[in-house]
Order: sequence, then C-alpha cells, then structure tokens
Amino acid sequence: MKALVLTENEVEIRNVAIPEPQEGEVLVKVLYAALNRRDQWIRVGLYPGIRQGSILGSDACGIVEKVGSAKHIAWIGKKVIINPNVNWGEDARHPQLSYTILGMPSHGTFAEYVCVPVHRLHEKPAHLSDSEAAALPLAALTAYRACFYKGEISAGKNVLVTGAGGGVAQFATQFASAAGANVWVTSSSEAQIQLLQAKANIKGGVLYTKADWHKDLFKFTEKEGFDVIIDSAGGNDFNLLIKLCKMSGVIVTYGATLGTAKIDIPSLFFRQATIKGSTMGNDQEFADMVEFVSKHQISPIIDSVRPFSAIVEALNDMAMGKVKGKIVVEM
Amino acid sequence: MKALVLTENEVEIRNVAIPEPQEGEVLVKVLYAALNRRDQWIRVGLYPGIRQGSILGSDACGIVEKVGSAKHIAWIGKKVIINPNVNWGEDARHPQLSYTILGMPSHGTFAEYVCVPVHRLHEKPAHLSDSEAAALPLAALTAYRACFYKGEISAGKNVLVTGAGGGVAQFATQFASAAGANVWVTSSSEAQIQLLQAKANIKGGVLYTKADWHKDLFKFTEKEGFDVIIDSAGGNDFNLLIKLCKMSGVIVTYGATLGTAKIDIPSLFFRQATIKGSTMGNDQEFADMVEFVSKHQISPIIDSVRPFSAIVEALNDMAMGKVKGKIVVEM
Repeated sequence: MKALVLTENEVEIRNVAIPEPQEGEVLVKVLYAALNRRDQWIRVGLYPGIRQGSILGSDACGIVEKVGSAKHIAWIGKKVIINPNVNWGEDARHPQLSYTILGMPSHGTFAEYVCVPVHRLHEKPAHLSDSEAAALPLAALTAYRACFYKGEISAGKNVLVTGAGGGVAQFATQFASAAGANVWVTSSSEAQIQLLQAKANIKGGVLYTKADWHKDLFKFTEKEGFDVIIDSAGGNDFNLLIKLCKMSGVIVTYGATLGTAKIDIPSLFFRQATIKGSTMGNDQEFADMVEFVSKHQISPIIDSVRPFSAIVEALNDMAMGKVKGKIVVEM
Repeated sequence: MKALVLTENEVEIRNVAIPEPQEGEVLVKVLYAALNRRDQWIRVGLYPGIRQGSILGSDACGIVEKVGSAKHIAWIGKKVIINPNVNWGEDARHPQLSYTILGMPSHGTFAEYVCVPVHRLHEKPAHLSDSEAAALPLAALTAYRACFYKGEISAGKNVLVTGAGGGVAQFATQFASAAGANVWVTSSSEAQIQLLQAKANIKGGVLYTKADWHKDLFKFTEKEGFDVIIDSAGGNDFNLLIKLCKMSGVIVTYGATLGTAKIDIPSLFFRQATIKGSTMGNDQEFADMVEFVSKHQISPIIDSVRPFSAIVEALNDMAMGKVKGKIVVEM
C-alpha cells in the first residue's frame, strides 16, 4: 500500500506492506485522512520523541475491513473515525508517561490502511460526509478540551478565539458558539471572520494585523472583557490577551506559532486571572466531543480535498499559512 | 498624632488630627504596624489609584479605644488585628471594582491611631506577641489564598516557594509545611534556607544565584517535579519553573520582582500545567487564615522591630532587599 513515511530529513510516499490486525485490533481502509500542524512539526523535527520510519497522520475516516478477533466481526463494513489517543491512562487531567498520538511513533492514517485497537473506533457521525468526518478527530478533540474542560465555557460567557484560520481555532469557535457563548475572533483575513459569522454565528472579529486591535475588541464587549480566551499564537501580543481578560478570566493556550509569550505578571494577578496549557484531550472527552458535534450538527470547515499524491505540497501550504480550514486528502 | 503621609514624591511623618470613629467604626490605638512591599510600590508611584495625602500602612496590632456605635462597646480594650480588605464584595473569586486596601486611599496603620469598620476586626491570636501579630494581616492573607484557594496545597504534595526571604513567601512556606506538603525553597541566602528548615520543617532549598539551581531541585524531588510552585519573581527564570512542574502542575504568581515573565508555551501545554495570578484574598480567607495560624501556632518571621521614627529608612532597607522577614515598627 502507499503511505507517507517519515524519513531522515523529510517525508515521502512509499510502498509498504498492508498491516495485519492483531488480537483486539481492526484493519481500517482509509477513505480520507486530514492534516494537522503536528504532522508538519514532526516533519521538520520539532516534536518530542521522533521515530524515523513512522507513517504519519492522526485523522481519518474509513471502513473496517478486517478484524483481529472474531468477537469484533460486527465492526466489519462500518464507517468509522478513530480516536487518535494512544495510552492516555487513568487520570482525566493529563496523559501518562507512555502516552503517544496515532501517527508517530505508531503508524498513522496517511496510508491506504491503518491498524488500530477496536476501542479507538467511533462510528462516523451521521450528519457528516466522509471527507468532513476525516477532519474531525485531533483538532476537534483539542478544541473540545480547551473550551470545556479547561475554559469551562458556558452560555452567556464572552469568549475570544485568536487566529481563527487554524483548524483547532475554528472548532473552538464553533463549539463555544454552539454552547451559547458570545464569541469573537481575531484573524488576518476579513473573509475568515465573515465565514465564521455565517457558519458559527459569532458576534464579530478583528484583524490582528491592525494596530490597536485589542482596543476594538474591548469596546465590542462593552468594556467588560472576556471570560475565556482560546489562544495558539503566544508571542509578544500574548500580554494583550491578559489585558482583555475579565476579573478571574481564563486564557487557554494550546500553541505558540509566534513563539515565547511575554506576560506582565501584575496584569495577571490584579485580575486574579489564569493561564492554562492544554493539548489533546482524554478518551471521555473524545466521546463527549463526538456526541456534542452530532447534537449540534457541527461540520468542520474544509479548506480543500486533495489527492493523496499531493500531500507533501499540502503540508507545505499548511506550513506557509496558505489554508483557511482543514486540508483533507483522498486515498 | 504622628502619621506617615504620602506626599507628592515621597512619604513623610506629619502631625495630623486623631480621627473620630463614625457609626459602625472603631478607633484603634496602634501598638505595632508592619511594612509591606505595597507601601514601597505606592511610595515610588508604581501602584494603581495613587491618592496623595493618604496615610500608608495595611498591617497593625492595636487596642480598640473608642467606638462609633454603643452596640460595639464590648470591643473597647480588646487587642485586635485588622483585615486590610476594603470592599472585596460578594464574589469569592475576585474583588469588585470598588475594592481597595487599607492604607491608601483609606488612611492606614502607619499612625498612632486608625479608624476602621468594626467588621474588619479580629481578636489578636493568643499565641502571638503584639509585634508578631502586627506582621500577620496582608502578607499572611496573600500567602493563604496563594497556597490553598489557588494552589490547592494539601498533605503529601511537592511544593516549591521561590525567593523565601520575602514576607509572603515565608508565610507560604510555613503554611504549606503546616498543611503536610513537602516544601522546598529558593533563596539567595543559605542562612535563610536554614532558618526555614528550623522554623518550618522544610525539606530543603537551593541558592537561585547558583547555575543550574533548577536541576538540583528536580533531583531533590526524585525527578518528580512539583505539584505547586508559589512565585513572586517572574523574569527570565519563570520558564524554568514551568519545567519544574509535574503533569497538571500549578504555578501561583503574586509578584514580579524580576519583571516580565517569559513562558515557553509548549512546556506549559505538554504538562497540562496552569499559571494562576493571585493577590490578597477575600474576607472568608482572612478568617480562615487567622484560624489556621492559631491552630498550627504559626508565628511570623520578624526581621526587626524598629521605632516609628525610623520607618522611612526601614522602607529603604526593604526596597534594597536588605531584610530577612517582616519589618515591624513600634508606635
């Protein structure tokens, strides 16, 4: 089968053997897979625990084609998505030491077939197309934990999601809005803000490329500020996010595309504010996320569906910030 | 009466009228008052809401000499300490907008007499001398909230308190240890660490002036790291504190003597760690703190007791970091 394999300094499509499901595992024929920034971080060596030779990819929608144990035969022919957690463990707050994510070190979804334990399977949400379902797992899980377990977003709260072009940010925007929060976004693109107004009923947004963008946001909230801010940029402007917090406000951070964050500590403590680091989510959160997405009929924002043969170019486009939603590849 | 008054660019001892207690207030004859960094920040104009002409000082032990309402007559002659909160409000999480602290804008304790509402009074803890009791209110309240409401410190947790020469840090060290936590400290002085080993039964400490101090600390915890870190330094080394956190670790920050903190966001989110800003505490926490201090027979670490006439020099010494505990002034 064809698969995108991590090589010494790159990734490349290679022919490898179709894996054989072991006891408790299933073989999933991948219909669509989706890209995450994690894939690109691994590609360029900026991720912990790199293992050469791994097949990348954490997201997929596929059909169960073969099972390793007869008792799982009912799964055959079902359309599924895969919980990308590997060994989260028993503590809901954080993963255990042996935790990894599907697609390095374990072989992932950028392949015609992938083997996973049967307890990783969830039936494809009925309201989603196969390509939409493929875009869900990793980014929506990350957004779900950031919004609800960490951010404790609920109806009526003022929520800001920064950099709303990213996959996780778009899910966070949709989730917060579906939960009844008043949601604003920052983006580098007016079209992106309009898209989210149409798709997620947000209150509005500002271009972070504009001077004093934070002052406009503060006015939009009638100078109240935000209960919750979901950020993945970090950098020098992180401090402005603290100033945008209400008293007891919470900033949830799951990324640092702009690098090291600077924080003015008195701004933080005079507000009794909190910064919470968040990444991925536990297995219960994955199940809750799938239920939430189904209940609220949320569908991922897809940038494009491309052939698997163009996946390296797709990773390049993602790295260059040339995308406006999830990139899905068709196997 | 003599009082330390905030003037345009300085503080000075002046003669002012003895205040008259109004309905619901009491007049306290100050026996001892204690210094806090807040006083110095106000003195040099680095505090929000500066009001010239205010009498500074948030901490005192005194005797109630006069009451504004006959129904409070039972307080007369009692030795008291004063809860320095003014208008915290109803929300336990944070103070309301009108919140201030005794000693600017309302007249404070660096005076022979101070008027406060009767509901601010607590009887002096029986195990403390008058000068020790004076050192308690502001710093111990700040430490109590940082340790228990924000840090959720409990028995068996690994706790690090940085800069253990400061008043709040010393209380935090004593409180965490009394709660049964395994406590380590950082300090610039070996004598300070030994003092806290004797006085608060801490596990140990490191000199933060030494290269790779964080690596030694990590070894001391048997490479487990810390559940809770209480910090008031900020600055470039703040990031090392994140690396010293256990999974789901919490850093509580109530000061920034070393300035803007830099944070490496992936270090934060891979640990699912949290940074909580904290300052002061609510009225319930003040009452709980007094009870905790009495129950565990905790006494403040006093640097020196000085005459009120030497208070400006005492502020200078505090600003220069020349102190090893609370400075108390005798009125």
